[in-house]
Amino acid sequence: MQFHHHGYVSGEPRVQDAAGTGIDRPADLPDEMDVLIVGSGPAGMLLAAQMSQFPDVTTRIIERRDGRLVLGQADGIQPRSVETFQAFGFAERIVAEAYNIAYMNFWGPDPENPGDIVRTARTEDYGLKISEFPHLIVNQARVLDYFAEAAAHGPARVAPDYGVEFVGLTVHDEGDHPVEVRVRHTAGERAGEERTVRAKYVVGCDGARSGVRAAIGRQHVGGISAHAWGVMDVLVNTDFPDWRIKCAITSRAGSILHIPREGGYLSRMYIDLGAVAADDDHRVRQTPIEEIIRRANDILHPYSIDVKEVAWHSVYEVGHRVTDGFDDVSEGTGRDPRVFLTGDACHTHSAKAGQGMNVSMQDGFNLGWKLGHVLTGLSPSSLLSTYSAERMPVAQQLIDFDKEWSALMARKPEEITDAQDLATYYLATAEFPSGFMTQYGPSTIVADAAHQSLAPGFPLGKRFTSVEVTRVCDGNAVHLGHHAKADGRWRIYAFADGPAAGDDSALAAWAQWLTSAESPVVRFTPAGADADAVFDVKAIYQQRFDDVDISLVPAAFLPRTGPLGLTDWEKVYAAAPSTWARADIFAERELSRDGVVVVVRPDQYVAAVLPLTATQELADFFAGSLIDQRAMAEPDR
Amino acid sequence: MQFHHHGYVSGEPRVQDAAGTGIDRPADLPDEMDVLIVGSGPAGMLLAAQMSQFPDVTTRIIERRDGRLVLGQADGIQPRSVETFQAFGFAERIVAEAYNIAYMNFWGPDPENPGDIVRTARTEDYGLKISEFPHLIVNQARVLDYFAEAAAHGPARVAPDYGVEFVGLTVHDEGDHPVEVRVRHTAGERAGEERTVRAKYVVGCDGARSGVRAAIGRQHVGGISAHAWGVMDVLVNTDFPDWRIKCAITSRAGSILHIPREGGYLSRMYIDLGAVAADDDHRVRQTPIEEIIRRANDILHPYSIDVKEVAWHSVYEVGHRVTDGFDDVSEGTGRDPRVFLTGDACHTHSAKAGQGMNVSMQDGFNLGWKLGHVLTGLSPSSLLSTYSAERMPVAQQLIDFDKEWSALMARKPEEITDAQDLATYYLATAEFPSGFMTQYGPSTIVADAAHQSLAPGFPLGKRFTSVEVTRVCDGNAVHLGHHAKADGRWRIYAFADGPAAGDDSALAAWAQWLTSAESPVVRFTPAGADADAVFDVKAIYQQRFDDVDISLVPAAFLPRTGPLGLTDWEKVYAAAPSTWARADIFAERELSRDGVVVVVRPDQYVAAVLPLTATQELADFFAGSLIDQRAMAEPDR
Repeated sequence: MQFHHHGYVSGEPRVQDAAGTGIDRPADLPDEMDVLIVGSGPAGMLLAAQMSQFPDVTTRIIERRDGRLVLGQADGIQPRSVETFQAFGFAERIVAEAYNIAYMNFWGPDPENPGDIVRTARTEDYGLKISEFPHLIVNQARVLDYFAEAAAHGPARVAPDYGVEFVGLTVHDEGDHPVEVRVRHTAGERAGEERTVRAKYVVGCDGARSGVRAAIGRQHVGGISAHAWGVMDVLVNTDFPDWRIKCAITSRAGSILHIPREGGYLSRMYIDLGAVAADDDHRVRQTPIEEIIRRANDILHPYSIDVKEVAWHSVYEVGHRVTDGFDDVSEGTGRDPRVFLTGDACHTHSAKAGQGMNVSMQDGFNLGWKLGHVLTGLSPSSLLSTYSAERMPVAQQLIDFDKEWSALMARKPEEITDAQDLATYYLATAEFPSGFMTQYGPSTIVADAAHQSLAPGFPLGKRFTSVEVTRVCDGNAVHLGHHAKADGRWRIYAFADGPAAGDDSALAAWAQWLTSAESPVVRFTPAGADADAVFDVKAIYQQRFDDVDISLVPAAFLPRTGPLGLTDWEKVYAAAPSTWARADIFAERELSRDGVVVVVRPDQYVAAVLPLTATQELADFFAGSLIDQRAMAEPDR
Repeated sequence: MQFHHHGYVSGEPRVQDAAGTGIDRPADLPDEMDVLIVGSGPAGMLLAAQMSQFPDVTTRIIERRDGRLVLGQADGIQPRSVETFQAFGFAERIVAEAYNIAYMNFWGPDPENPGDIVRTARTEDYGLKISEFPHLIVNQARVLDYFAEAAAHGPARVAPDYGVEFVGLTVHDEGDHPVEVRVRHTAGERAGEERTVRAKYVVGCDGARSGVRAAIGRQHVGGISAHAWGVMDVLVNTDFPDWRIKCAITSRAGSILHIPREGGYLSRMYIDLGAVAADDDHRVRQTPIEEIIRRANDILHPYSIDVKEVAWHSVYEVGHRVTDGFDDVSEGTGRDPRVFLTGDACHTHSAKAGQGMNVSMQDGFNLGWKLGHVLTGLSPSSLLSTYSAERMPVAQQLIDFDKEWSALMARKPEEITDAQDLATYYLATAEFPSGFMTQYGPSTIVADAAHQSLAPGFPLGKRFTSVEVTRVCDGNAVHLGHHAKADGRWRIYAFADGPAAGDDSALAAWAQWLTSAESPVVRFTPAGADADAVFDVKAIYQQRFDDVDISLVPAAFLPRTGPLGLTDWEKVYAAAPSTWARADIFAERELSRDGVVVVVRPDQYVAAVLPLTATQELADFFAGSLIDQRAMAEPDR
């Protein structure tokens, strides 16, 4: 964690200094704003936290409820989400309070006594096998609390406007703030009052019954299956021995997905309520909690639960829908989008694969930095078209996975030929539910794969997979990827060729070029900004850390920044194993020993893999999504 | 982290429900209180956090300053202190923001050019080699912030009374609150106002010039050496390559102890100001910062620092003093103590060994639970005599270590025959500066070593060294010791003999006895309290976690507690390695395979090691420091 950079900080270093729109931010929703986020769920709150890193942008987030979420909703957290929490600064805290999934067990009918259930398989959870981050269960309310804190502590000091609901919007062709939005106060003295505000961009994070989706005329395509589930968060005493282990239970009386929750006592149960008649007309949603508990006890037989407290319960029918576009632009209109959809507003599915909150957050992470870059003049507004293009295929993948998983979960015992097959499926598909299978295709922000062979372990379009390296300045073992905070900056990792610091090398030549007029750092960083304001450039040497003489490292990797012009010591790393760092990132990620440049987007996805000599290609790549700031500063040239 | 135990908790689980004196706690210092802590430094604030776990006790803490500490003072944090932070719930957060010491380097005169310094040795820091916790540097102000948070979030809601100073005290022979204390307001509208309040116990945490020490007539024995040091927290640019590594630097121009600080930019330097003349009369303390910086540059030659900001600086002369008793009772008076001294109030020394804050915190940790147990009627007041008896020898050890280290640091280059000897000393003595060498002698709260051979890895009187085990209920690898929070409870770890759960075994017999009338749990737990209110009893089986059938584990290890009578699943562990937990605690700590009971005090020190069959000895041990609660409840028997 870096701080004291602008002078000594005595208090909580996680609270950044307020800046720009964060200074004297009005308590009331203003008449005009740059970004209006509708809804404070996982996508909306992540987006708020991300936009808080852009203090030149006015961001507001409205929420119909009159305060924070208290109960219920999602609770499954993939490793990819924990990785994202790390970038927002709260991973270690949420891990400490969450339930960590170590195993998943499977239960089925006892062959000798089919009215009873027996444990049929134990599987180790995939989380820690494919990531340094665990697979967690924690209530969505706490995830939102942490993002709210990150948003409030960012320089733009973004905080939700609770008690304000979305009514409708109109996108005008002209004007600086072309989106006209009608909102209504739902709480307090002004309850019922309607207002019209104007925004440059609106993001619908307003859930499955999204008003924003309706307002832009998008269609939510798909249907509801004829299967209903009850869900409850309960405190119980029980003789069921796996109360604190995630379980899929299939018995003659139906199925349960059992999810232990944070805190050591609570669990969530998804209880099969069976097929829903065609003429049910959602009456199944009125199923009383007593009936859900009775079903649970039937399924668990010979075990039972004695429910001491029901914290929350609900009934839902499984739907699978994807919206026909994630922004307000129909293909071929040539206009750049002004309105976006995220999360349940554009993809809905069953809760049981534990994916919804995770995919929604990545929607927000994908969109946030793009809005920030466009609104601060770093990037053209065409960048915003990549949001729908990148996230729609992910939503479709999610629906496909969930359909398959839901169908497997809903099978009757007689349909199950192999007791291990749910377990087998669970492990075989680990990359998807971990959140690591997303791969964005080539675009202005993902380069082609011409040089992928220089770094097979950093697949283009997939998220950057961190490895421990040694920080040269202090010899600490640190995860290279964890230095990349969700601050909206591009990362350029320059993996060195063989020569030591100070000797002639491809890295030294590259670093020299980085200070030239052709350098993207020079071209795309605004005049007067810190050298690392847009690009955070790091060098990783192949040597042991104590064989790297930091005095001889090129100045490009030791920039002097901030009001005091202080040297940033934390951009120089060493790959060779030492006492505290055991891995070698060159070996782990199969990096070329001739060196390689790996470019990573602000949302942590690998954007380009290039040789150290391919300086022109690197400059060209960035020119595809960034605006030359010298042209901006000197219009007469 | 366990919560939801009293019903569903929606918000921050680290905030416990207010109880007892924490409900409607008065904002003003009351006329009477149980415990008055004087001074909000490390010992005082730890004590406040500890006492906040005893909501039946009224605890107040006064501080002369009108708000939190902002700058300066101690910054070295031993692994033992991080372990303590873990027990208070904030280790992961402070580790994330602190400087982690990975190496310590040594610099001396260049043999070929003695006016210049060169690096003479690199040593790996000991922290992670002897503990799962690192060795940190972080400003005392932040340590105090975290303890303040723990105190505020505990059920007693303890918060400092800022702007109130200690004036004097008188210990009366009689009365329920025999200590009469005179205090004065130092800030706000009431500045200058004096009051008299009364307390059952007073703890002087008021630093080297302790007024409490003076009031009880204790002598601070020792002297000031004829050597002065300047200390400064600075933001600089420099060509000194080890700016971010802890260094001991010895040059012809003097010595520097260089300590990188949290945040990546700041460092602290202790700069040798040389011998002080006998008639100096503390004039050296007026040395201006410019002179200190000039000396630093002289010592660093050929390197130099360009100071951009001085966050804090001071000058001090090295003193070594220990007070002649840590409470107000002279030997042989037969009275139990009413006033205690902690931290700098009873031991002062140089700052450079990085020990002071750490030893002070352990003073507070040693005293807190004892006050809590006496004031809640669990223990007789004679327990309080053990505080001075246990902590005075530790203070003397500290002074001895510091004298040796200070002398080594202050040597002139020509006195150094082996360039490596500072490094050698640093590593050879690692156990002391890590905080792990403290060993309390036999007493009512440390049993004799008759059965030590059953658990050589848990030396009696030393702090319990944790090992990873597997939690049976969910298969998670967890540190056994980390479940022991600073909640004032005794821990009893029952390491099982060989048979599996459900089979006849010494463990099963012991568990059965634990529910009998002879059991300390039955005798010393107040009527109506939860079964684990005083003793937190855990079982550790030798098997793999999935070979322990939790349905067959004795009920003593699965107590039902709290208002809902919920099963606590987190008291049953397994030792055999599994995918996630690699160690076997029986092997790591050389535990008898016939089973062994290890008793650990509320401050984490090993109190007893006994065979599972020695039930009478176990009961007798606790009878030495706990009061039979059945006698309390039924006075007519």
